[in-house]
This record gives sequence, C-alpha cells and structure tokens, in this order.
Amino acid sequence: MSEVVEKILANYAHETPGVIGNLRRMMNTGALAGTGKFVILPVDQGFEHGPARSFAPNPEGYDPAYHPQLATKAGCNAYAAPLGFIESIAHQYAGTLPLILKVNNSDSLGGPAQPESALTSAVDDALRLGCSAIGYTIYPGSENRNGMLQDLREMIADARAVGLPTVVWSYPRGGGLSKDGETAIDVVAYAAHIACQLGAHIVKVKPPSAHVEQKEAKKPYEKVKLDTLADRIRHVVQSSFNGKRIVIFSGGPAKGTEEVLEELRQIKAGGGSGTIMGRNSFQRKPEEGVAILKAAIDIFKA
Amino acid sequence: MSEVVEKILANYAHETPGVIGNLRRMMNTGALAGTGKFVILPVDQGFEHGPARSFAPNPEGYDPAYHPQLATKAGCNAYAAPLGFIESIAHQYAGTLPLILKVNNSDSLGGPAQPESALTSAVDDALRLGCSAIGYTIYPGSENRNGMLQDLREMIADARAVGLPTVVWSYPRGGGLSKDGETAIDVVAYAAHIACQLGAHIVKVKPPSAHVEQKEAKKPYEKVKLDTLADRIRHVVQSSFNGKRIVIFSGGPAKGTEEVLEELRQIKAGGGSGTIMGRNSFQRKPEEGVAILKAAIDIFKA
Amino acid sequence: MSEVVEKILANYAHETPGVIGNLRRMMNTGALAGTGKFVILPVDQGFEHGPARSFAPNPEGYDPAYHPQLATKAGCNAYAAPLGFIESIAHQYAGTLPLILKVNNSDSLGGPAQPESALTSAVDDALRLGCSAIGYTIYPGSENRNGMLQDLREMIADARAVGLPTVVWSYPRGGGLSKDGETAIDVVAYAAHIACQLGAHIVKVKPPSAHVEQKEAKKPYEKVKLDTLADRIRHVVQSSFNGKRIVIFSGGPAKGTEEVLEELRQIKAGGGSGTIMGRNSFQRKPEEGVAILKAAIDIFKA
Amino acid sequence: MSEVVEKILANYAHETPGVIGNLRRMMNTGALAGTGKFVILPVDQGFEHGPARSFAPNPEGYDPAYHPQLATKAGCNAYAAPLGFIESIAHQYAGTLPLILKVNNSDSLGGPAQPESALTSAVDDALRLGCSAIGYTIYPGSENRNGMLQDLREMIADARAVGLPTVVWSYPRGGGLSKDGETAIDVVAYAAHIACQLGAHIVKVKPPSAHVEQKEAKKPYEKVKLDTLADRIRHVVQSSFNGKRIVIFSGGPAKGTEEVLEELRQIKAGGGSGTIMGRNSFQRKPEEGVAILKAAIDIFKA
Amino acid sequence: MSEVVEKILANYAHETPGVIGNLRRMMNTGALAGTGKFVILPVDQGFEHGPARSFAPNPEGYDPAYHPQLATKAGCNAYAAPLGFIESIAHQYAGTLPLILKVNNSDSLGGPAQPESALTSAVDDALRLGCSAIGYTIYPGSENRNGMLQDLREMIADARAVGLPTVVWSYPRGGGLSKDGETAIDVVAYAAHIACQLGAHIVKVKPPSAHVEQKEAKKPYEKVKLDTLADRIRHVVQSSFNGKRIVIFSGGPAKGTEEVLEELRQIKAGGGSGTIMGRNSFQRKPEEGVAILKAAIDIFKA
Repeated sequence: MSEVVEKILANYAHETPGVIGNLRRMMNTGALAGTGKFVILPVDQGFEHGPARSFAPNPEGYDPAYHPQLATKAGCNAYAAPLGFIESIAHQYAGTLPLILKVNNSDSLGGPAQPESALTSAVDDALRLGCSAIGYTIYPGSENRNGMLQDLREMIADARAVGLPTVVWSYPRGGGLSKDGETAIDVVAYAAHIACQLGAHIVKVKPPSAHVEQKEAKKPYEKVKLDTLADRIRHVVQSSFNGKRIVIFSGGPAKGTEEVLEELRQIKAGGGSGTIMGRNSFQRKPEEGVAILKAAIDIFKA
Repeated sequence: MSEVVEKILANYAHETPGVIGNLRRMMNTGALAGTGKFVILPVDQGFEHGPARSFAPNPEGYDPAYHPQLATKAGCNAYAAPLGFIESIAHQYAGTLPLILKVNNSDSLGGPAQPESALTSAVDDALRLGCSAIGYTIYPGSENRNGMLQDLREMIADARAVGLPTVVWSYPRGGGLSKDGETAIDVVAYAAHIACQLGAHIVKVKPPSAHVEQKEAKKPYEKVKLDTLADRIRHVVQSSFNGKRIVIFSGGPAKGTEEVLEELRQIKAGGGSGTIMGRNSFQRKPEEGVAILKAAIDIFKA
Repeated sequence: MSEVVEKILANYAHETPGVIGNLRRMMNTGALAGTGKFVILPVDQGFEHGPARSFAPNPEGYDPAYHPQLATKAGCNAYAAPLGFIESIAHQYAGTLPLILKVNNSDSLGGPAQPESALTSAVDDALRLGCSAIGYTIYPGSENRNGMLQDLREMIADARAVGLPTVVWSYPRGGGLSKDGETAIDVVAYAAHIACQLGAHIVKVKPPSAHVEQKEAKKPYEKVKLDTLADRIRHVVQSSFNGKRIVIFSGGPAKGTEEVLEELRQIKAGGGSGTIMGRNSFQRKPEEGVAILKAAIDIFKA
Repeated sequence: MSEVVEKILANYAHETPGVIGNLRRMMNTGALAGTGKFVILPVDQGFEHGPARSFAPNPEGYDPAYHPQLATKAGCNAYAAPLGFIESIAHQYAGTLPLILKVNNSDSLGGPAQPESALTSAVDDALRLGCSAIGYTIYPGSENRNGMLQDLREMIADARAVGLPTVVWSYPRGGGLSKDGETAIDVVAYAAHIACQLGAHIVKVKPPSAHVEQKEAKKPYEKVKLDTLADRIRHVVQSSFNGKRIVIFSGGPAKGTEEVLEELRQIKAGGGSGTIMGRNSFQRKPEEGVAILKAAIDIFKA
Repeated sequence: MSEVVEKILANYAHETPGVIGNLRRMMNTGALAGTGKFVILPVDQGFEHGPARSFAPNPEGYDPAYHPQLATKAGCNAYAAPLGFIESIAHQYAGTLPLILKVNNSDSLGGPAQPESALTSAVDDALRLGCSAIGYTIYPGSENRNGMLQDLREMIADARAVGLPTVVWSYPRGGGLSKDGETAIDVVAYAAHIACQLGAHIVKVKPPSAHVEQKEAKKPYEKVKLDTLADRIRHVVQSSFNGKRIVIFSGGPAKGTEEVLEELRQIKAGGGSGTIMGRNSFQRKPEEGVAILKAAIDIFKA
C-alpha cells in the first residue's frame, strides 16, 4: 500500500469505498503506480476533430485496438475514450487497464450556437464495459451553462451510486471570453475551482498563460506570483481546494518533444498531479508514441 | 429549552418534526444558541466570483478546511457553501456545526442570457453529507422566473420529505429592474414576500435602500416609514408574513468594520433575525475574521 | 341535504365521490350554505402585486392569520391563497374553513416574455395542508398556451385522483388581444368555455364588457343580447356548458361599495354562481371588510 | 358479423384485440352498422372557434347534452369532442354511443407562433369516461412538427396498451405552405400518408383541390388523374396504404345542403370511408341537423 | 455457420447475444447469406418525399404489401421502413424477412428550422412487430445535434436491452456545411466515424466525392488516396474503426442501371459491406426492380 496514494485518498473521505477504490486502482496502475501521479492516454480526437485529422499522421490509430496497447506498453494509469472506442476493446482490457468512458463529446461539423457537448453515453455503459471512471466536459462561460452543470450533477450522482469517480474536463469557452482568455490564469484557475465545487474527483484543465482576462480579477492577481508556468500551475492547484483535489493538465496540439517535456517539468514543479497526453503520443509513429509517454512518466516519477 | 426559539418555531406549525428539528438545531447552536438570532458564515464566493477574487486577500481561505473552523471559533449558527466545499469537510463537522448545502450557483464567466443559477447539487447530497438545511437562490425579475420557481418548488418538497428546511436567497435581478432597483425597498420587501409565499423557512435578502422602484408602488409607500435602515428592515420583516418567517440580511462587499457593525445594529433594531456574513469575515486575517463575527454575534445577542 | 346543491352536483356526475364531496363541502359552508352560491375570499395579491400595494391600505393584512379570520367572520364559502399563506394557517383552519390552494402565481417584478404563471405548489401540498380544492390560472391568448394547458391537464388529473376539485382562473391576456379585448364579451365567454372544456369544476372570469374583440365573432354576436351586465353574465353562463358548470366572477380593483354591490346584483341576475372578492374586502378596515363581504352574501342569498 | 367490416379489420392484423374491438364497435354502430362506412359527429368548434361562433346559430348546441342526442337520433357511428363535453355526457352514453375523446385542441385567441395544438386530455381520461377511441390533430408543415409527432407516438402507444384506436386529424398548416396549399392534392395525400405511417387507425383529412403545391411534386402528378373530387379522393385513399387504412373527410364550414351532399357523393365514389360532419349539422335547427346527417348516411349506405 | 460472418461478429464482442443474434440473422438471410455482405431494401420515401413522388412511377408501391415481396423475391438481407409500413406487413413477414424499423423520420412539408427528424416509433414497437433491428437518422452538422445524439444514445441502450442492433443513417446537413460538403470525403468519413463512436452496429452513409470541405482537413487529406470511388470508400471504411464496423452505402436518387451497378462495384472494391437501395429498385416496374436488386446482390456475392 502506497502512503502517498493513501494520503491523496484521505482528501476524498466523503466518498464511498467504490469511488475510492477506483481512484486507488488508477493510482496503483502502470509505471507511476504508488506515486500518486498520472499520465493518461485520451483518444477522443476522432470524434472532436474527425478521423483523418486525428489518425492520418499515424494510420495505425484508425484502429481502436491500437490505443489501449499504446497505453499499456508505455505504462499509463488509464485510457480515456468515447463509447465506440471503449466498446471495441473493453472485453480485452477491462480488469487490466483502467478505462475512462468519456460520456459527452463535441464534433467539428456543427452543433448548438453556444458551446455544449452532446451526451453520448451513460454511467450504465461505463458499468457494463468494466470502466474505472467516467469523463465529462464542461465549458464554463457558455450560455448553455445550466444544462451542462445539471447534467454533470446527475452524472456524478449516478456514477457515485455505482462506485465510479468522475473526471471533469473544464474548458472555458463561449460567452464573453476572448480566445486568449480561454487559457488566462484567472479563467483556468476559476474553471478548476468550479469543477471542484461541482464534485469532480479529478480535474483536467489546460496549462494557463500569464494573461488575466477578467477586469475584476486584475487587482487580486497583483498579489499572485505568475512568472513561470510552474508558478501558474501552483496557483491552479491552490485554487483546486488548496491541492486537495487531483488536477491534471492537457498538452494541447502536437508539438516538439522537448517543448512537451519542458511543459511537463513545469507542471510537475508546480505541484500538478500529472498529464493527459493524446495527440502528442498517438500521432507519432508507434515506437515514438511509446517513447514520449515513457519520458512523461519518467518526469512525474522523478 | 429556549422559550424564544420555541415561539419562533410555533410559526412553522405546519411543518414536519424533521424540518422543525433542524431549524431548532440551528437556533440552538453557537454563541447565539437560544436567542432565536442567526449569524451564518456563507462561502460561495469562490464559485460566484472566482478563487483569487475571493481568497487572495486571505489565502488560508483557498483551503476548504479553513471556513468551518472560522465559523466554529466565532460561534456561528451554521456554515453555508456549495457542494465541493461541503463534501471536503462534512465528515469532520456533520453533527457539530450545522451545514447548509447551497444547491444552486452562478459563476462570473458566463451563463444564460437572463439570470438563473445552475442546479449544482441536490437534496440527496445534503442528506448523505449530514447537512441541516439546503440553500437556493432565486432572481425575482428574471425572464427565467418560472423555471427557477418550479425547481425551488420541487427542492422544498424533496427537502421537507427528508426533514430539511430550505433557506432562500431572494435577489431581484434582470427584467426591467434598474441596478438601484435591485435593493429598492419595494423590491426587497416584495422579494422577501415571494420567498415566504413559496414556502421558504428562512429568507435571505439584501439590506434595502429608501428608493422605491416600481411606479405603482410609489403611492402605497407614502404611508410606510422608510427613514432609517431600521425602519426599512421593519417593513421587510412585516412583508415576511408579519414577522412569522425568519429573515436574515447579507452584508454585501467587504467594507470597514464600523460600517458593517452599524448596519447590523440597524438590522437588529428593525427586527431582522440576523446576518449572513461572508466576505467581510473570511477575507480578513484569521484572527480579524473571528473578531468581526464575534462582534456581530454580540450585537444580536444584546 | 340541500336540493339546490344536489342539483348542481348532478352536473358533475362523471366525477369521483372525493371531488363531489369537496364541491359539496364548499357549497355547504358559511352563510351561503345550501344555496349553491359562492362568496370566496382570495388573497394572492401579495404575490401578484407586492406586499405594500396589497396590504398598506389595511396593514392587518400583512399577517397571514388575518384573512381566514375575515373569511370566517363574514361567512365565506372558502379562502384561496398561495402556498405560504395557506401553510401559515392551515393547522388552525383545515376542517373548518375550506381552503383553496392557488398552485400557480405571477409577480409584477418580471417573468417570461409571454404571460405564464409559475407553478408554485402542487396537489401534494393541497393534501398535506387539508385543502378542499386547488386553483390554477390560465392566460388564453398567450403564446405559452400549450405549456399552461398541459400543466393544468396534469394538475386536474392529479387533484382528481385524490378527491380535489380544480378552480380555474381564466384570464385572457397576451397574443393579439387588446387591453379592452381582455374583458370583451366574446373573449370572456370564450375563456370560460375553454376552462370548462379543460375539465374545470369551478370557473372564474372577469365581468365582461359589451365590446366584441374578434372580427369573426362580430356577426354571431348580433344575435346575442348584451345590453346589461346581467345579459352578458347570462351569455357567459350559457357558454359554460349551458349553466352546467359553476361560474364565479371577480371584482377587480378596489372601488366604491355601491359600485361593487350593483355589479354583484347583475351577476346574480344573470345567473352567475357568485363572486370571488379580494381587494374590495381585505384592503378595507377589518369591520368594513366583513361588512362588504356580508353584503355580497346577502345579495346571493336573496 | 359483417363481412365488409371484417375485411376492413383484416388490414389491422397487427393490432391487439382491444383496438380491433373498438374499431369493430364503431363500424357496427348506428345506421351504417355493417357497411364499413362512417358518419361521425364532431363538436370541438366551441374550443376551436369560441362558443358564440359555434352555437349562436342553433343555441341548443351550447348544452353538451344536445350533441350526443343528435348523433344518436341521426344514427351516427360515433361522437367526437374535447374533454369537457365528453365528461358532461359520458355517464349517459358510454356503452351506447361510441365516444371519441379529442385529446388535443387549439383555440382562436392565441397560441404558439408555429401551429401546434395543446394536449388537453389523455388516454386515462378516455378510459375512465368509457370512450372507444382518442382523436389527435397534427399540423404537417409546422416548425413544431417534432414535438407533435412525438406526442402522438406516445399517445398511440398509450392508447393501444389499453385497447383504444387513434383517429388522426391531419391538417397541413404553417411552414412554407400557402393557404391554397393546405388543401392541395399533393399536400392532402401527403398528410394522409404521414398519418398512416405514424400508426393512425383512422385518418381524417380535408377534401383536396386539384392544386399541386410542391414544385417537386408537379412532375409525378402529371400521371395522376385529378379531374373530379372523386378522382382526387381516390388518390388520397391510394396514398393511405392503397386503401388499407380508413380515411374519412371533413366538410369544412357550413354551406348549402345540396353542396354538402354532392361532396359526400364524390367522397363515396372515390372510395372514401365516410365523413365527419360538425358545423353542417349542429348549427342547423335540431330537426334539420338530424335530416342532413341522415341524408349523409343514406349516401354512404347506398 | 459462415466463417466470414463469425469473423465480422467478432468485432462486436462487447455486445449481448441478442444483438449478435440479430446481426447474424441479417447476414444469414437472402441471397447473400453467409457472405457478410448486405443488400437492404429501404422504403421511407413516402414519408420523406410524399406518396406520389415515391410511388407514382410504379403505383404498385403505394401498397405496403409490395415492398417486402420485392425484397424477398430479390433475396435481400432485410427490409427497412417507418412504423406504418412495417405494421401493415409484420404479421406476414416477421420470422422470415428481417425487418428494420426506422424509428425517426422527416417529411418535405416543413419541420424544425435546423435539421432534425421526428421520433415516430420506439423500440417497443420494433419488439411487438418482430423486427430484427431499428434504424435512426442523425444529421451531423445540425445545430440540433445534442438532442439527436442524446435520443440516439437512449434508443441504442433501449434496443440493446432487448437484443436489437441499431443501424445509423449518418447524413451531414445544416450548420456551416455547403451542399457539396454533405458528400465531401472528409465529411462523410467523419459522419461514419461519429456513428461508430456513438455505438452504431451498422453505419449507412452516402458514397463520398473527392471534395474536401473543412479547411483544417485539407492538409491531412494530402496523404489520403482519393482518386477513385473505391479509394474513397476504403477511407470511409478505415474511418469506421479500421473496418471493424459494418458500413453500407446508399445510392441516392434513381439513375441509369449501369451507373448504379458501377457505383456498387466501386463500393465492393473499396471494402464496403453493401448497399441500401430504395428508389432505384421500387420505382421500377416490378420485374425490373427485382432484376436490379439481384444484379446488386451478384456484385457483392462475387
């Protein structure tokens, strides 16, 4: 039994053994087992951006069997994907690789005027497919906020009732937010805080910039250290119940290996719990995909 | 057994023992036990305004453990917060400090075109977390009125069925109301009356100004004494079923200590049942936060 | 057993004994017991117009205890009010004074763009509070018609299932109706007819003017006698299933005593089943309030 | 047992004995018993157009008792009306005259921007009132199509489950349809076809004109014979599953007797299953109303 | 037992025996039994385009009995149609010809501003009518996306629970898509991928053109071979979980026989699982309709 892991789980003392158990399972899986850190492989880009934009760079990715194999080889804590991809491999991986069912999704062909993902699967699906958690995206800032938050409220309650934790992707978007504002430090910290208040067990946000978007926030941020990414990560972690909730960061669009790894070192330094790395791994050739995930794991293991 | 408390509870003769019991519990807790008065600590500003705007002035407030400790030290009747904050501390405080789960919330990043908070937790959550009441915000004046009132109708019914009273934050906003109109005496009294008609057990409104917003209300208000804040509080209390419902007042944005305390003296003089004081306490340094809450308690105890 | 009452009840032969029983209870209560006529005291103006506009003229009315006492002293058949007012007094009056729970309400602070009251209580509330009926307002003419009618459909079914009759306030409003059109004879008769078709047990409309609003209705109304208010009441009663449904009329804004009583005489002469008189009674001094209600009762008793 | 009736019922081989039984009951009732033809009396005009526009021409019609008596005297197969009218007479006619409960209705005072009737009663009402079928109006062409069709889907399923067939009034309206288009041959045939595809047991449409509304339909209609009303009725019947569904036609606004009867002869000649005749019967003096219904029956009996 | 069929079914290892069984039934029916290929007859054009536009070219098609006979004579795997058509013939064909109930439909008379089909039948209907699958249309690109996807999510879950697979018609439409974009290779591949991610068992799309609609997709498509229809079909199949989901293609509007057959040869060459051919078969004279379906079957059998 890992002391580090049990200390993290103590912050979830209000939860049922089922939820605790699945959080423990994810933290005791893969190359980071026992460290309390996370490197998760997410593959929802086929749904979000289309198959060719996602998988043409490495056509093996068209096959749903490719990704859990990649996650396993690299030693990830978990694999997250929409219903179809999970259905396609669950019978082979349930009980081995923790699966996170992404229960809502957007696509790039069109959708509601204000940002809101569609519910595409449910807690029942996560159960029948042997998953260890569900994942849900909210877009703080959207005029459709209330529907999203209420759906999430029900999802978390349904999931808890059957022992599943919920990972919340909290991506500010829409409303009066500028494009830069979506990754502004005040907005990202706010988005992480909202997710925690809604009962998320694991929060996923983007690495924040030093930009402060909201006028009313400029003054309070004069007191907050924002110089390095590590500083900003630290503020996001503080905003997430003073570090009492697991916060992981995504890497965004594919970029150079060193750039990716430097970002991860800053996340580590700022106290982030880990990363969820998709396009930067599965869009590379198979061996390179494994390599960069292993490098990420090494950073968080250190 | 406090005669004052039992006399107040006699106004809730239609209620179940469970609801009565939790009202009694809140009135028999803390430094104001037995007086029938309330000083409640609410901490939903992280959700409503963002974490840095709320907690940068006193960074201890980022930690959910800070607030119930503050409430306990000061001798508050209860602590009110959104789901995440309550989840984080309920296992330590349930059974000691009465907890009020704020079941709907807004944020400052965006949301529906017309004011309406999102449902973020439910009566089931209040039960599993050992809470003594739920809290719900309505925005009279909003075009989304019907949805809000109908949700509240169901919340109160659900809460009653399991013995939980409901605290209604009644904040006029939207529609044709001017900014000044939101705290106009006619509007605040009206907002309190609506909350009582909807079945609220405790009503929370803002201290009213002497401004009369609605044209049709100008004439009747010629007969109502509005000179001092105490006069206006008295009218709000009268509008709340002639004082048969508990009405408490919020303090609004942080301000000078004396200003805060003078406002509380007027609330007391006008027959208000107490205050719900957030930013004016948790944004001060820990010892100062305790001090101002204790000063408030002293005023109502007098 | 009153033959008059039983003859009226024969028009409700399709109803369950529970519903029949509560209609019988209202017709066998108060000074009009056994006459089949109604004088009902409604007090929803606090909700609809605000507390000061409603109760400043007679401040005793701020107290929910005032109104059922007024109704009892005067000898009314029933007392109708929103949830909060009924909750406040039900434990004292249930079983004595028939209570009508007004299950939907509007306020004057704002609301949906097209007229539609909010659901503020439910049949379950009427049951637990010992009420004898529920009351529901529809606004024929509103673009939100379908939602209102469907809610009413469910309300009536729920109420019937537990033996409660439904009183429908049918107030044309919105859409293409002119202000004068809201009380036009064709529109009021139409509103009464719709309420009957929807299954209302008691219909409440405003006294109609001789104005004909709808172009297509001008020709048929050439054949209808509209000279006196009594004539017009007669047409409304005829439009209510040829007098087979109970139709009562409201008095509208406060006015002079003689004016009020003359209107009631015309309602009586035209075959109306009675009146529902609020502001004209509770806004007067206590003894005057009782007096005008008694005068109304005398007219219908005659 | 009528061979003609049983042959028609063979087209409903997928249905439960309850539904078949009620279709058989309607076809074995009245002067047309055993012929497989229908003359139905519908009285929803009070709701749809208002009481005076409907009943001033023959004031006996204000009384709900008048209409089932008219239907019985004339020998109609069934009587169709909204909830209130049916409730008023069901205890006297259930088991004798087949009753069709019209479960949705519109009025002429106002309503949603796009055509859609309000749900005003339910299958449960039809059951408790001893009805033999329910009736539902759709407006193909309306932007609110999806809600209407989904409500109908549920209505038919609910009705089937308790042995009740569904009569669908299919009246194209709204969207891009011209006024003439509402009775165009392509549009009426399309409306009948849609109703059949939705599972209607009996379809009611208006007699079609020779106008072709939709551009894309002009070419296919060059091959369809449209000269006489009988030709056009034949095409509508063909479009209704090649005559395997019962299709009846309404007569529209009151007109001269000979005009009405000639229309019915054409309907008969074209293979229509009958007529549903309201204003042309109940707006005439009682004896004349009986006479024209009997004349209609004679045409279909021939 | 066909090895080819069992190999395809191995890709559905997550499914219940009931769903697997019905997929197996369709693949073991008709002239293509055991090949894993599909030629399905769909007849929803009466609903989608109107009866005359659909059946005037071959008036035998007005009769619902015609189509399953055509499908049987030709040796199709299954027959797909809306509720009414299936109800009309299910008692004769259930257990022989696999029936696919099309549970949502659009018409050409009007409907919601943004593309969305109406729910017209349900899984319960499919069961009582002895169907082997349900069919559902989504319009990726529509602003009404979320409602559609959520309805589909529930449909698939309901259908799975009773052992029925779901065929998804995935037709991009609305939003910012150009008319050409609806059949663009990037858009069609994306639409197929979305359907797979949503849990579709069989996906139906249109044959794609070489046009690339989305700006962001232009670059990735430089690496994809798009020269022949077979190339493009191959990419769509690859985008459908690397060929692990059954993808069939529709033929669109009626055209010349050789043109149709050449298209089918390309679909075959590209690895498509078959075709769903409606207007190109039932709008021809009976013997010609059988002939072209048999020719299609021969192509896929080869």
